[in-house]
Amino acid sequence: MNFTGYQGAFTFASRFESGEETNPEELVGAAQAGCYSMFLSALISGEGLNPESIETDAFVSLGGDDIGPKIDNIKLSTKVKCEGLSEEKFNELAQAAKEKCPISRLYAGGTAAVELEAELL
Amino acid sequence: MNFTGYQGAFTFASRFESGEETNPEELVGAAQAGCYSMFLSALISGEGLNPESIETDAFVSLGGDDIGPKIDNIKLSTKVKCEGLSEEKFNELAQAAKEKCPISRLYAGGTAAVELEAELL
Repeated sequence: MNFTGYQGAFTFASRFESGEETNPEELVGAAQAGCYSMFLSALISGEGLNPESIETDAFVSLGGDDIGPKIDNIKLSTKVKCEGLSEEKFNELAQAAKEKCPISRLYAGGTAAVELEAELL
Repeated sequence: MNFTGYQGAFTFASRFESGEETNPEELVGAAQAGCYSMFLSALISGEGLNPESIETDAFVSLGGDDIGPKIDNIKLSTKVKCEGLSEEKFNELAQAAKEKCPISRLYAGGTAAVELEAELL
């Protein structure tokens, strides 16, 4: 399966200042937040439950070292509504989605530490 | 520096079929293509040259293994117009940008092999 197609505008201002367009850091955050939500939804459905809502934000921090700029931290924050899901099972699945979703696996081993804050509403 | 802000719609159809919205794989490709172009532009400018155009596409391949779906390959294809830039220096900088741009560094060590096709027009 090949994907190509997204075209988004970004500029020096939108990356390093406060322009309105997007930037690569936003895109990698959006990719992980979206993938994480989709993966967690599949895991919850696999338990025979039907999540009412899953909302995930990603906060991406850009730092730097001798080589140059680098993304050093991504914090995922997810909020889930789902009747019949126990706190224990929720925590297990939320962690599994962080380990196994394809975008998390793409970033694993790179420069970023990925943190997760998961809340069952 | 923290970034959050991109909100894009995607659905099961846009990810695995042919819906019109975006999907995480497109976003990670767009992030790397954009970051790569910006980084290569900075490297060329550092040589005292002024690139007329840098266009980069990313082709992202989704495969799978025992754990689940994974991004196994990203092909970057870049085309550059720049007066005064030699083929040798161009190849050196094109490769350096692939190694050093922050998004490449985020993906390094993960599931994807990143290939580069670089053409000086």
